Amino acid sequence: MIDPTFLDTPLYRCEALEPDLGCSVSIKLETANPVRSFKARGTELVASLLVDNGARAAVCASAGNLGQALAWSGRRRGLDVTVVASRFAPATKLHRIRALDARLELVDGDFDLARERAAAVARHDGIRLVEDSLDIETCEGAATIGLELVDAAPSFDTVLIALGGGAMATGVGHVMKALAPDVEVICVQPLGAPAMTRSWHQRRVVTTESTNTIADGVAGRRPIPAVLDDLLVVADDAVLVQEASIINGIRMLLDHAGLVVEPSAALGIAAILENRDRFAGRHVVTIVCGSNVDLDAYHRWIGAAPTGRP
Amino acid sequence: MIDPTFLDTPLYRCEALEPDLGCSVSIKLETANPVRSFKARGTELVASLLVDNGARAAVCASAGNLGQALAWSGRRRGLDVTVVASRFAPATKLHRIRALDARLELVDGDFDLARERAAAVARHDGIRLVEDSLDIETCEGAATIGLELVDAAPSFDTVLIALGGGAMATGVGHVMKALAPDVEVICVQPLGAPAMTRSWHQRRVVTTESTNTIADGVAGRRPIPAVLDDLLVVADDAVLVQEASIINGIRMLLDHAGLVVEPSAALGIAAILENRDRFAGRHVVTIVCGSNVDLDAYHRWIGAAPTGRP
Repeated sequence: MIDPTFLDTPLYRCEALEPDLGCSVSIKLETANPVRSFKARGTELVASLLVDNGARAAVCASAGNLGQALAWSGRRRGLDVTVVASRFAPATKLHRIRALDARLELVDGDFDLARERAAAVARHDGIRLVEDSLDIETCEGAATIGLELVDAAPSFDTVLIALGGGAMATGVGHVMKALAPDVEVICVQPLGAPAMTRSWHQRRVVTTESTNTIADGVAGRRPIPAVLDDLLVVADDAVLVQEASIINGIRMLLDHAGLVVEPSAALGIAAILENRDRFAGRHVVTIVCGSNVDLDAYHRWIGAAPTGRP
Repeated sequence: MIDPTFLDTPLYRCEALEPDLGCSVSIKLETANPVRSFKARGTELVASLLVDNGARAAVCASAGNLGQALAWSGRRRGLDVTVVASRFAPATKLHRIRALDARLELVDGDFDLARERAAAVARHDGIRLVEDSLDIETCEGAATIGLELVDAAPSFDTVLIALGGGAMATGVGHVMKALAPDVEVICVQPLGAPAMTRSWHQRRVVTTESTNTIADGVAGRRPIPAVLDDLLVVADDAVLVQEASIINGIRMLLDHAGLVVEPSAALGIAAILENRDRFAGRHVVTIVCGSNVDLDAYHRWIGAAPTGRP
C-alpha cells in the first residue's frame, strides 16, 4: 500500500562522521522523497485504508511533517485532507501542506492545542481523525523502517530514534525487539520537550506545561497513554539532549555527511555527542527522519560557530 | 559485483522546485552513499574484475570523486590504490581519498596533467591504469543509473546528465537509447570547461587550453576520442551553462529540495534555468551526481545572494 518512493531508503556507513563521534555510524536516510520525512510511510497506509473503506475526507493535527505526508497521500487518492497546525510551525512545512492541496487550519498555540482542534473538526465534520502515534497505521508505517534495517543484515548494535509522539519509536522498536532483539533501541528527545522520556522513566504519563526546543517535530507536552504502554515494552532507554548538541548534530551532518536535516533528525547525533563513553566503539544507526527546515533558521544553526563539543 | 549500498538510489518528484523552473522535475540522488557520488558504481566493477584477475594494485587520475570511489572499492577487496589528483582539487575530496587508505599523489596542474602522471605511474609500477570514461567498466557502472531510471517506468521525457569525461553521459545515454528511446538525453557542461560539448557539436575532438569553472568534477580539457565516438551515438544534445546558473542551481537544490550538491550536480538545474522555454511543461530527470564540497566554498555559493535568475 505504500508508494515505493518512500521505501528502501538509503542505509550507509558514514565514516567521515566517525572521528568526531568515536563510534561507527550508519545513516538511515528518510529525507530523499517527495515530502522529505519518514511520515508518508504511515500516511500511505492510513489513506489507502480510508479510501478502501469509502472515506472521502480526513483531518489530522500535525507539527508539519505528518500533515504534509497525509496531504500527499490523500491528494493522489482523491481524499480531502484537513491539517490543523500551530501557527508557530516552520513556515516551509505550512507552505508545503498548502501546496499539496490540503486545507490548512492554524491554531494560536502549540501542537497539543492543534490536536484538540483537529478532534473538534473531526467530530463536527463527521470525518476520520488521524492521530499520529495512536493510530496503529502510523506506527506500522514507521515500522517498515525497522524491517529495512533488519533486512540489511545488521552489523549495528544500537539504533537511535527521535522520540516525539512515539510512532517511529514504537514502530521501529517493535520490529527490532521482534526480529533483532540484540540491538539496543534508544529513544532521544530534547531536554526542552521531555514529556515522553520522563513518562518512560517513571512508567506513567508525565505532562509538561510548555516546550522549549528548536526540534519542532518532536515538541509535545501530553504523551498518549497507549503509546507510552507500547514504548515501555520496546524501548531499552530514552535520553534527553541539550539544544546545543542538537545544533552541533545539525552542523556535523552538514559538514561531514553533506546532509540537510531538521533538528529532530539530529537528535541521534546529539545523543552520541553527549554520551561518548556509552557509544565508544559501538556501531550505531541513526534515523535521519526529516529535512523540512526554514532556511533562515537553518542558516543560523549552521553559521553560528564551528563544529564543537556540547 | 556492485555493493548494494550504491544501487537503487532515490528517484522522486520534487514539486517544490517546479514553480521556479516551469517544468516537472524528478531527482535521481547519487549522494546518499559512503562516497557521496555515483562513481562507486563503476569502481565496484573495476575493482571486482581486477581482484578476480589477481591484480594487487591499481592507479587512477581523478578530479576527486573517482579516486574516493576507487579507494573505497579497493580497500574492501585488498587492492592497493594510488590516486593522482590536482593539488587544486577540493580539499575534502583529497582528505577522503587519504582517509580511505589510498596513496594520494598530487600534481601541480589540472586533471589532464594528473592523467598523464597516472599513466606514468602505471607504466613504472606495472599496475593497472584505471581510466575514467575510457574503461568500459566506468561507463557500465554509471549505466546502472540508466537501468534504474528505465525500471521506474518513466513518466519523464528528458534526462539531464552532467558531462565531464563522459562516463555517466555515455553509460546512462546508452541505456536510454536502447530501452527508452523516446527520452531525450541532454548533456550539460560548464561554459568554463566546454571541450567535450564543443567536440560533440563539431563531431571531432576539440581541446581547450584551460578550464575556468567551479564545477571541478567535470573540468577536463582533452576529450578522449573513443568516448566522444560513443557520445555522438547516444546524446541528443549537449549544452553549456554559465557559472551564475550553476550557483543558482546549487542554491535552489538547497532551498527547495534540502540537498547539498557539488557544482557538477547542479548542472541539470542550471540548464533548465537557462532554457526555460525548451523545458516548459516537460518532465525532466536530473541526476544529482555528487555532494563532495569544500564547506567554505559551499557557504560562499549559498550565501552570496537570494535565489534569482541567471
